[in-house]
Amino acid sequence: MSADLVPETRVLAIASHVVYGHVGNKMATLVMQSMGCDVAALNTVHFSNHTGYRQFKGTRTTAEEISNLYEGLCQNNLTDFDVMLSGYAPSAAAVEAVGAIGQDLQRKAADRPGSFFWVLDPVMGDQGRLYVNDDVVPAYKNIIQHADLILPNQFEAEVLSGIRITSLSTLAAAITTLHSKYSIPHVIITSVQLSKLCPSETNPSPSSPTTQNLLTVIGSTTLSTGEPRLFRIEVPALDCFFSGTGDMFAALTVARLREAVFNDPDAGLRDTKSWVSSDDVQATELPLAKATEKVLASMHNVLEKTIEARDKQLAATAAQAGDVAGGGEAEVKKEHLRRTKAAEVRLVRNVRFLREPTVDFKAREWEEGL
Amino acid sequence: MSADLVPETRVLAIASHVVYGHVGNKMATLVMQSMGCDVAALNTVHFSNHTGYRQFKGTRTTAEEISNLYEGLCQNNLTDFDVMLSGYAPSAAAVEAVGAIGQDLQRKAADRPGSFFWVLDPVMGDQGRLYVNDDVVPAYKNIIQHADLILPNQFEAEVLSGIRITSLSTLAAAITTLHSKYSIPHVIITSVQLSKLCPSETNPSPSSPTTQNLLTVIGSTTLSTGEPRLFRIEVPALDCFFSGTGDMFAALTVARLREAVFNDPDAGLRDTKSWVSSDDVQATELPLAKATEKVLASMHNVLEKTIEARDKQLAATAAQAGDVAGGGEAEVKKEHLRRTKAAEVRLVRNVRFLREPTVDFKAREWEEGL
Repeated sequence: MSADLVPETRVLAIASHVVYGHVGNKMATLVMQSMGCDVAALNTVHFSNHTGYRQFKGTRTTAEEISNLYEGLCQNNLTDFDVMLSGYAPSAAAVEAVGAIGQDLQRKAADRPGSFFWVLDPVMGDQGRLYVNDDVVPAYKNIIQHADLILPNQFEAEVLSGIRITSLSTLAAAITTLHSKYSIPHVIITSVQLSKLCPSETNPSPSSPTTQNLLTVIGSTTLSTGEPRLFRIEVPALDCFFSGTGDMFAALTVARLREAVFNDPDAGLRDTKSWVSSDDVQATELPLAKATEKVLASMHNVLEKTIEARDKQLAATAAQAGDVAGGGEAEVKKEHLRRTKAAEVRLVRNVRFLREPTVDFKAREWEEGL
Repeated sequence: MSADLVPETRVLAIASHVVYGHVGNKMATLVMQSMGCDVAALNTVHFSNHTGYRQFKGTRTTAEEISNLYEGLCQNNLTDFDVMLSGYAPSAAAVEAVGAIGQDLQRKAADRPGSFFWVLDPVMGDQGRLYVNDDVVPAYKNIIQHADLILPNQFEAEVLSGIRITSLSTLAAAITTLHSKYSIPHVIITSVQLSKLCPSETNPSPSSPTTQNLLTVIGSTTLSTGEPRLFRIEVPALDCFFSGTGDMFAALTVARLREAVFNDPDAGLRDTKSWVSSDDVQATELPLAKATEKVLASMHNVLEKTIEARDKQLAATAAQAGDVAGGGEAEVKKEHLRRTKAAEVRLVRNVRFLREPTVDFKAREWEEGL
């Protein structure tokens, strides 16, 4: 196979489906397929478009329907998955159903450590606000202990750890709690605005040519003591709100983490439960850190291309722009739809950047208080 | 963009979804995305796996849900499709709902001839047997008159034309009827076993090194008189039953036909209603013929790779083979599942053959009686 494809990987992806655009499984499936993964896609909603449009039509998959589809796989011996990636589930019962699937796949793989790995994106909310029912939170708290890697954003990490992240030390404490209280081997907090936590951190990289905002991604693989092994990667924040980037991050992480584990100098790692590196491996040398570097590089490439395409499309459709200042509610809505559509992630014609990103971000060691 | 991608194409694909494997939209979406098309996927069923396994779980999308999802696209101005590809719909009402969507998109594009093209795969049955309800047949008969290209197999062509195909002349008559009675500009009959119709036709190509069976694909773009312009392409039949090949054919045809029309020496063709070439264009020079040549080449490559992978997988799982001779029903079933899984089309790691096939099949003129 081509050198740019990751090791053969069969993934069960459980997330939302939209007819138009790229979020949820519609994003994750193509991303993982482009990396060479065989993807089984179990869709938890069937919507016309993502909710950023503020209106959509469609249906949600019930917990029973989710379990039933999985039963269909079981009865046909179609459960030989290497990885499960679980994302948005539309109810607490659906989260429980997904949790039961993850645990069943773990049981099936119990005598072959490292042969099955569960990446869980605990989709609950963002920016201090839940966008799921309250009962989804305890449902996630019940299942994350079974996952090998979780990918909360800052808000979700707060909700799960019970620790409000207001500083670098509370951030470290939140990750420590996720490792210790829930026994989760790997954690990545996918978007932290360190500038808000620590103003001197706005532009720590001497190579960064501008004063633009940076987004920080913090990751950790647990030590045998339960303590975290923290790394951080800064990437320039792009001036656009995109939908589906969390799903792109998760899907790329599946492919790149498996690649990193298979390329790891410790050949035994892939046969180790949860792919946890031995304690002598430094944070920046962790497969999780190596994977995240590539993930962020690909995302940066694709999102830069998306901004270019968005700007072109907005210029080309300028005549259809809603008259936001002079018009009423209908004009505001029309303009919102035009801008939301223009900001859809441009994936199909940029898949080469998934396989071979052209930029380079480096993980750095992160000691609490640095 | 890369030279190997087709012109920018936005497709609305309406067909079935399976969690595991590649049939329906699960096949068509990846195929078209790999060719560079942006695909909106409206799924008409949500099944665990394809029906060739003889057991599956899941749900069907109702006609109302299909219409509702389309309404969601309309209200968000997400209907700027260049092509619609419609495949399996699970009921007569669902077929009607799909037909209404096709006609609505045609109305929206009415003042820009050639800007919207509808490829319709009238999925009803095969090998002399319907696998849909009887009322699906008249539903298709009502909507095919609106399509630009239909892709029936031999049985479906018989059902739609009312002509039983028992000879080369009845085959030509069936296509003539589809052109004239239903005003369908382009027709491809995707699998004809000419050897059964005409034994002397079993191996007409001097370059064919073996006596293996050939499959013949017959296509035609109508003349202004309503008469057909027939071409034929022979490909070696592969010794394996695959599911999803009809969907692969349809998806590749969408991409390749658009490419052929954009590359056509007659630059006005793309602005001509239904992309119908002028009468002086010979059958073998039709964009439809050029497209079908490439489609069949890609399919041959992917299916050859699938057979290789199947054989390897069957060898690797030989220990799990069901004891068909000595065992009971359970053993027969177990073996059927093992073989069906092994024959899943290997798409993800062979997408390069979609863009750049390595074999070459040529369309030949086909006069009735040849």
